[in-house]
Amino acid sequence: MKIKPLGDRVVIKMLESEETTKSGIVLPGSAKEKPQVAEIVAVGPGTVVDGKEVKMEVKVGDRVLTSKYSGTEVKFDGQEYTILKQGDILAIVE
Amino acid sequence: MKIKPLGDRVVIKMLESEETTKSGIVLPGSAKEKPQVAEIVAVGPGTVVDGKEVKMEVKVGDRVLTSKYSGTEVKFDGQEYTILKQGDILAIVE
Amino acid sequence: MKIKPLGDRVVIKMLESEETTKSGIVLPGSAKEKPQVAEIVAVGPGTVVDGKEVKMEVKVGDRVLTSKYSGTEVKFDGQEYTILKQGDILAIVE
Amino acid sequence: MKIKPLGDRVVIKMLESEETTKSGIVLPGSAKEKPQVAEIVAVGPGTVVDGKEVKMEVKVGDRVLTSKYSGTEVKFDGQEYTILKQGDILAIVE
Amino acid sequence: MKIKPLGDRVVIKMLESEETTKSGIVLPGSAKEKPQVAEIVAVGPGTVVDGKEVKMEVKVGDRVLTSKYSGTEVKFDGQEYTILKQGDILAIVE
Amino acid sequence: MKIKPLGDRVVIKMLESEETTKSGIVLPGSAKEKPQVAEIVAVGPGTVVDGKEVKMEVKVGDRVLTSKYSGTEVKFDGQEYTILKQGDILAIVE
Amino acid sequence: MKIKPLGDRVVIKMLESEETTKSGIVLPGSAKEKPQVAEIVAVGPGTVVDGKEVKMEVKVGDRVLTSKYSGTEVKFDGQEYTILKQGDILAIVE
Repeated sequence: MKIKPLGDRVVIKMLESEETTKSGIVLPGSAKEKPQVAEIVAVGPGTVVDGKEVKMEVKVGDRVLTSKYSGTEVKFDGQEYTILKQGDILAIVE
Repeated sequence: MKIKPLGDRVVIKMLESEETTKSGIVLPGSAKEKPQVAEIVAVGPGTVVDGKEVKMEVKVGDRVLTSKYSGTEVKFDGQEYTILKQGDILAIVE
Repeated sequence: MKIKPLGDRVVIKMLESEETTKSGIVLPGSAKEKPQVAEIVAVGPGTVVDGKEVKMEVKVGDRVLTSKYSGTEVKFDGQEYTILKQGDILAIVE
Repeated sequence: MKIKPLGDRVVIKMLESEETTKSGIVLPGSAKEKPQVAEIVAVGPGTVVDGKEVKMEVKVGDRVLTSKYSGTEVKFDGQEYTILKQGDILAIVE
Repeated sequence: MKIKPLGDRVVIKMLESEETTKSGIVLPGSAKEKPQVAEIVAVGPGTVVDGKEVKMEVKVGDRVLTSKYSGTEVKFDGQEYTILKQGDILAIVE
Repeated sequence: MKIKPLGDRVVIKMLESEETTKSGIVLPGSAKEKPQVAEIVAVGPGTVVDGKEVKMEVKVGDRVLTSKYSGTEVKFDGQEYTILKQGDILAIVE
Repeated sequence: MKIKPLGDRVVIKMLESEETTKSGIVLPGSAKEKPQVAEIVAVGPGTVVDGKEVKMEVKVGDRVLTSKYSGTEVKFDGQEYTILKQGDILAIVE
């Protein structure tokens, strides 16, 4: 991985619908703010907000749920990624 | 349950209208911001906001009232859930 | 009472216009943000905001004035209630 | 007075234009945010904001200037009052 | 002076264009947010913001520049004044 | 210079386009928020924000880049100035 | 480099599409908030936000991803630059 996120950001790779279906999660088609299943591919070093350390609680390889409209998309080596803050991750899927 | 919410988030399952009626709670049909009766199915570990620990005061199995427009919906194994922050829970119903 | 409000929320029951008139308070008909006379039926345990404890200064049975548009309405056992934060209560009426 | 304002709120009674004129203050007719001359009829106990005590610096009987659009109006025993926060009072008129 | 501003507010009296021209300051006619030359006629006692004392750095008689749209206008004994916070004063003119 | 800015404000004088071109800086014609080359002619004493001292890092004579829409314009002795906060200065040009 | 950014700002030079393609990063054409690959050409000294030091974690020569709409553009010696805050840099590309 060549992208090193700054602060409390993470880089995630959206999982294909097929993969999503296999894992038993189906995204609702019409929800205004659709959650997304993604895999974490890079984690920033953490940051300080309001004088408090923000520790990274997710790690590379975690499958996570995020809101579709969180973060910024970037394409790298033919693969699309999203860079977003850890606080925009809703949950870890196990 | 396979979804582990991050921070001060909880995962809730909306209760069917039938169940709602049995418990004696009827939701007004025209309210702009309708409350929702839901059951808590997963609770995050808590978080720190403005340097203060946010402790989780709800537990799995609690029946709670939330605003309809709080949180993000996700479908998992054929069941719809909502992931929201504890601060968006209005009250516990006993 | 079966509804336990979380944090610094309270549950109030709006008083009928008749009762309101008896108590000598008449609400102006055209005010954009009409105050409401209500009775408190449940009080949350209080909360912490910006590192400071928010103590509950109202108690069950208090008659209070609130803005009409504060809080969330909920119907329970055929009675409508509103759940709102203590900070949205303007005054106690004695 | 039967209305006890909560926190750093005060209850004021707008003075008639006649009284206003007698006291030598004339409100401009076209100002977008017209100041108002009012008398304080009830004062809350004060509150804590951002960890600092907000002391009440006005007392019952003070004549004050406020912005017309501050606070919430309420009618009580045939008299209209406004409930607003002390911070919305611009000045004391002596 | 009969108006005592609260907190970190000051009362200012706008100077006539003639005076303004004499002092060598000409206000641009078309600027969207025109600065105003004014004289300070009353100063509040100061206040506390975010736990820090706001000291008053202007005194009665100072000539100051403010933005035209800051504060609230009030007429008193045939003279128009503006009540605004010290933070809305841009500079002292000497 | 007769204008003493308050707090963390500075007074700047926009440089003519000719000067700008000589110094090798050309402003893009269509940019929505055009940067401006200016010279600092007065510096305030600094201020306290959120309990932390804001020290002035620019001095009279510095050439700086600012956003075109920052601050308030004022004309003085036939020369136009702009009063803005130090935080609205993007960079020093050397 | 003649531009010294203030505070926690950096000066970046957008890389040509050709360079971008060589490095294997392709920007999506229709994304509403397109990320940008840029090289850092100047770094400010850092600043203090909410009483906490913001250290500069990027250095001159770093290749970074930013949102297209962050910062202010400036042209200098025939080259366009953008001045933005470090917090608007999403990631370092290696």
